Amino acid sequence: MAILVTGGAGYIGSHTVLSLLERGDEVVVLDNLSNASEVSLDRVSEMADKDIIFYQGDVQDPECLQRIFDDHDISAVIHFAGLKAVGESARLPLEYYQNNVSGTLILLEEMRRAGVHNFIFSSSATVYGVNAPVPFVETTPIGGTASPYGTSKLMVEQILADFAKAEPQFSIIALRYFNPVGAHESGRIGEDPHGIPNNLLPFIAQVAVGRQEKLKVFGDDYPTEDGTCVRDYIHVMDLAEGHLKAMDHLAAIKGYQAYNLGAGVGSSVLQMIKAFEKVSGRTIPYEIAPRREGDLAAFWADARLAEKELGWKTQRDLECMMRDTWHWQKNNPNGYKE
Amino acid sequence: MAILVTGGAGYIGSHTVLSLLERGDEVVVLDNLSNASEVSLDRVSEMADKDIIFYQGDVQDPECLQRIFDDHDISAVIHFAGLKAVGESARLPLEYYQNNVSGTLILLEEMRRAGVHNFIFSSSATVYGVNAPVPFVETTPIGGTASPYGTSKLMVEQILADFAKAEPQFSIIALRYFNPVGAHESGRIGEDPHGIPNNLLPFIAQVAVGRQEKLKVFGDDYPTEDGTCVRDYIHVMDLAEGHLKAMDHLAAIKGYQAYNLGAGVGSSVLQMIKAFEKVSGRTIPYEIAPRREGDLAAFWADARLAEKELGWKTQRDLECMMRDTWHWQKNNPNGYKE
Repeated sequence: MAILVTGGAGYIGSHTVLSLLERGDEVVVLDNLSNASEVSLDRVSEMADKDIIFYQGDVQDPECLQRIFDDHDISAVIHFAGLKAVGESARLPLEYYQNNVSGTLILLEEMRRAGVHNFIFSSSATVYGVNAPVPFVETTPIGGTASPYGTSKLMVEQILADFAKAEPQFSIIALRYFNPVGAHESGRIGEDPHGIPNNLLPFIAQVAVGRQEKLKVFGDDYPTEDGTCVRDYIHVMDLAEGHLKAMDHLAAIKGYQAYNLGAGVGSSVLQMIKAFEKVSGRTIPYEIAPRREGDLAAFWADARLAEKELGWKTQRDLECMMRDTWHWQKNNPNGYKE
Repeated sequence: MAILVTGGAGYIGSHTVLSLLERGDEVVVLDNLSNASEVSLDRVSEMADKDIIFYQGDVQDPECLQRIFDDHDISAVIHFAGLKAVGESARLPLEYYQNNVSGTLILLEEMRRAGVHNFIFSSSATVYGVNAPVPFVETTPIGGTASPYGTSKLMVEQILADFAKAEPQFSIIALRYFNPVGAHESGRIGEDPHGIPNNLLPFIAQVAVGRQEKLKVFGDDYPTEDGTCVRDYIHVMDLAEGHLKAMDHLAAIKGYQAYNLGAGVGSSVLQMIKAFEKVSGRTIPYEIAPRREGDLAAFWADARLAEKELGWKTQRDLECMMRDTWHWQKNNPNGYKE
């Protein structure tokens, strides 16, 4: 039996594939490489000393999915594939809804046809929307999302809940990621955003290696301790392990369940800059810029449900996140490109 | 220039096509006939003494859409195509989300590609969800829908709002239908549900002609005047005319706007039965059955925005709705089937 990982060449996908391989799972990866590099899979394969079966294709292509399900004995699907840039989603809503929503619908249809009933979905803390009280807890009603990206994740969660009710043979878990950062401790795989990074830590790391001149801090007048935004950062290897725990828990799930994957504590932008400077020994020049539309002041996870039901909690602290980010960025200043 | 009407062979679609033809518009119909009969279009064509260009195909088929946009000079799209049975949607959520959500995404993509920027969408009062105060008004936040059907309409509205923001050349109106009933006064076209009707008035009409034995009234202990559910029934020809008014208003819309199309008054199930009995002279045997899950006690439209901005309000009263329903059902006891 093998596990199909869509978007397995991407940032979180590649780290999860590594964890799966290391514990002995067979892995089939489907990725359209629109925002990922096959090099990540080569390295993962080397590191684990195991083969990865790779299909370059799209979850929106039913025939490609049918070929995979025909050719391999798939026991479960972990569905990372999707577009994920909040700002871009406001400019390209149709592309976001098609990739993220229609893509998942097509995948579910082909899973049902193939009799594959175990499904783990990459969701996001953004599903809680702009008015949810913090910390975010799974019992808070989701909705009120601020971007097509967030709305697309919300829609898929709603679809999964309805689908699981109608198809009781399915076991479905949505994992709501908080802010994934860091890299594998080897420094061989990590986050490799195309173009100018949308997220804080990749931007900091690129400033540190001189690929970007200066960091923009969007707003220093938020009602937080130091005025900058507070987020719940989680090490990508903790996140990868969360997927393994979720896989193990699928058999106990009848229907649909969502879990927060976060550390349960918040860190501000300025704290992140300082922590990175300390670990790297580099100074990160920054300037204060206006707030970005749609940014919340502060949110973090109530991560107790995942601890209780999945037996999972984060193991890696902020220093570890910074060290591994820096290790990856230093060794791969241009990401996976030569 | 022609207007593309998706789902134009269906109940509301066929009445709207007739109104469009009668005022001189050219019409292209796309319908997959999954829940409609081509006979409706033959009759509409005869009644208007005009040709209808008909494509049997699906909005989920990009090539079919491309052919239509290539072959005809389409100025606007009225998008009726979709699945619409609330109860069925809970059993077949994937089919509902694919037809209604993915279908609309594909249609929007092909419209953008073809440079067709005027769009009217068949939405529903169900987007207001189960906790909205009555009467429903357009400024009430939508959400909290009780069925995949309702959620699929909600999702499309969210997509349209995001899409209109990103693509300012588009003018988009969503029309939130309350409870459409009745038929064209000729009795030649009307509602022809497959199988056992899901909606009240078709069921009453089929009891009247002996196709169904007895009406089930779902709940008589609601907090309404007579204990049965209260809805805002609207004559399908009023609804059709609402689409024409919306078409005329598109040029004044930049972006996205939703309008309630309802009478603005509620009628109970027992009032509907009595009104039908009075007009038809037939007795409608009924029995009280348990409440159906997800049914609201009472809702009706605040229909003032459509009156103010579209210059539209309902013209036809309950007696007219009953008379035309009965006329259609009597003349076509088996709908469009011989």
